[in-house]
Amino acid sequence: MLLPGHSQKAVLSFREPRTPRNGVRWEAFIVVVMSLIAIPQTMHFEVPLPLQSGASIRGYDLTYECYGRLNADRSNAVLVCHALNASHHVAGVYEGQPRSEGWWDNMVGPGKPVDTDRFFVIGVNNLGSCFGSTGPMHVNPDTGQIYGADFPVVTVEDWVDAQARLLDELGITQLAAVMGGSLGGMQALSWTLQYPDRVRHAVVIASAPNLSAENIAFNEVARRAIVTDPEFYGGHFYRHGVVPQRGLRIARMIGHITYLSDDVMNEKFGRELREVVTQNASGYRYSTQDVEFQIESYLRYQGDKFSEYFDANTYLLITRALDYFDPARAFGGDLTRALAQTQAKFLLASFTTDWRFSPSRSREIVKALLENRRSVSYAEIDAPHGHDAFLLEDPRYLSLVRSYFESIASGAKA
Amino acid sequence: MLLPGHSQKAVLSFREPRTPRNGVRWEAFIVVVMSLIAIPQTMHFEVPLPLQSGASIRGYDLTYECYGRLNADRSNAVLVCHALNASHHVAGVYEGQPRSEGWWDNMVGPGKPVDTDRFFVIGVNNLGSCFGSTGPMHVNPDTGQIYGADFPVVTVEDWVDAQARLLDELGITQLAAVMGGSLGGMQALSWTLQYPDRVRHAVVIASAPNLSAENIAFNEVARRAIVTDPEFYGGHFYRHGVVPQRGLRIARMIGHITYLSDDVMNEKFGRELREVVTQNASGYRYSTQDVEFQIESYLRYQGDKFSEYFDANTYLLITRALDYFDPARAFGGDLTRALAQTQAKFLLASFTTDWRFSPSRSREIVKALLENRRSVSYAEIDAPHGHDAFLLEDPRYLSLVRSYFESIASGAKA
Repeated sequence: MLLPGHSQKAVLSFREPRTPRNGVRWEAFIVVVMSLIAIPQTMHFEVPLPLQSGASIRGYDLTYECYGRLNADRSNAVLVCHALNASHHVAGVYEGQPRSEGWWDNMVGPGKPVDTDRFFVIGVNNLGSCFGSTGPMHVNPDTGQIYGADFPVVTVEDWVDAQARLLDELGITQLAAVMGGSLGGMQALSWTLQYPDRVRHAVVIASAPNLSAENIAFNEVARRAIVTDPEFYGGHFYRHGVVPQRGLRIARMIGHITYLSDDVMNEKFGRELREVVTQNASGYRYSTQDVEFQIESYLRYQGDKFSEYFDANTYLLITRALDYFDPARAFGGDLTRALAQTQAKFLLASFTTDWRFSPSRSREIVKALLENRRSVSYAEIDAPHGHDAFLLEDPRYLSLVRSYFESIASGAKA
Repeated sequence: MLLPGHSQKAVLSFREPRTPRNGVRWEAFIVVVMSLIAIPQTMHFEVPLPLQSGASIRGYDLTYECYGRLNADRSNAVLVCHALNASHHVAGVYEGQPRSEGWWDNMVGPGKPVDTDRFFVIGVNNLGSCFGSTGPMHVNPDTGQIYGADFPVVTVEDWVDAQARLLDELGITQLAAVMGGSLGGMQALSWTLQYPDRVRHAVVIASAPNLSAENIAFNEVARRAIVTDPEFYGGHFYRHGVVPQRGLRIARMIGHITYLSDDVMNEKFGRELREVVTQNASGYRYSTQDVEFQIESYLRYQGDKFSEYFDANTYLLITRALDYFDPARAFGGDLTRALAQTQAKFLLASFTTDWRFSPSRSREIVKALLENRRSVSYAEIDAPHGHDAFLLEDPRYLSLVRSYFESIASGAKA
């Protein structure tokens, strides 16, 4: 059997007795935390995968993780699709790395909304990404050269095809559910169109049936920042031993602004200065290039961090996949006709302050599904955090997903 | 008398008879257009201007234009303040350049809402800008070197002080009105605080009492794009005979996205492709670097155009002036207390789809003025165009301003 289970591990935490500021003496205590230990795996695919663009890719790897146990009739599998900068590492931590939680660890795990005591959950790093699966920084088996900018353009549909092949290898014919937020939600939606009989439920969170012009515009500015960085070298920067960090920083800063709501930015940062100086009555430093406001400091930090781990060509590829996704396109823009081929039941959720993937975009999907008389649950969650909300702790949101998965677990296959 | 009047000019347009597509033969006709001819002027100031930062600037020029005639008691002057990339050229055209209309030509001119047959209108290019007034590309008289990044940081308050000195020279003690949109509206508001007895009316359009964290964030990303362009050379690119065009392009693209509403972007561009290719069923080219969508083409064009005429240091200075403006800051954030010193009457207007300077920000000013029992008219205009709406033709908006200025013209000084 190819499938790894997951191991659980007792973590002993022992605190020394000490006197905290409020003067109450704490007692020594022991906490036993059961941690989900994640084990990344890699599957190699030699047979070429035909891509939407007409190109194909062969000899590629997919990196993935599995949590929980596949049941005897293989009916409890849940595929989690990732968004722009996430990966196969959805849940749990790596052995000996207690702070390496997966990106959706509040959602997936033992006793969590997507309960790995009941479901067998799979996370896959998408083709073209930079966390293990074959991407632009790997060698093209046809040329012996690093792909770089020659990595083929991949789409949401291509990712779903690649994920389907992985499931074939894992012996999973039908998913109990496919789920994702943002670009991950697009993949979940596309699963129900490309493989309607392989998906019983689709959970589509903070997503959209396609990107608006404004969303494409933000992606394009980010891409131009990367492509026009002199250290991009037309996408072949690997050969020059450099990385277009300036462009990546700008791209990430733009991204961060759009992931947050105006409200949460005002609440977290407002007009707070990083440092109040005394030589001016205003407390300002009066500088155009130094950091003056806290929000600037935050954005620069986020940009710096991102530019150290994320691949520039991957950024281009993934934002393009976002731009291209548009299942209604082949139906003259008619989303209802496009979604006629779905068979799954749906849960959709959106967040009121998400202006990048606003509730109205989720409602378009809901409307088109209802017009096809599909079973749809939809929640519009009043959350202040903007698009980022789909990754955050929100009791109503998490309990919504929990209830839905409980109903999947207790229900029959249909 | 220093004041130039304005000349009017008959433009003859003669069209040859021709048969258009609908088969109706057009008649030859003559159109007589009365054009306002604008004449830029420059005033030199030798006495140092003290700046908010504690620095000062001396030996500087201000470039300005005047339209209409100052009346005998010098009571009909209107100062128009410009926003980020505009200038003193508010209205009319330059001699022999019929397409050189000023940036607010639909608002200011003979018979227009701000009627130059009644009012004497002044447009001034702000210090640090790049359209004639002294800015970073000019020589610092103290060093004999081009200022570059050493140009002192200027604030909204500094600009107002410089404008007041210009009015002194023009013999104008009190303005009938000061007006502006966006950053121009901030200057109009600041006039009522810095020189309360010199302003009878303030017209503050699509503005805000300060920038939100999100607005500062967008400015900061744009500045980082410029500053990290290798051809910025710490702001001394002039010496190297280059311009940080990459950074300016990115800055302008970001700006353009935020000036438009999501709705108007969808209406103007939507998901339209620049060119549909036939080798793929989708019509996509499948490229990460080529232009695929119309919105990308539009943004690249806007970025290219801007990078050819706008100064990079000016961009930093003006966005910083935006960031710093915050009259409530000296009053512990209490805008009502800050606006207690105003004496002017106010017209404020905002646009429903303006998410950069949203109606709620204008309402904050209205509320603070009303709490001080000031005379305030406020209009929230349902317009689809986002922040850009303040520059566009909108009959309700233009007639609102027209009515207000008619009431100024017909009313007494108070």
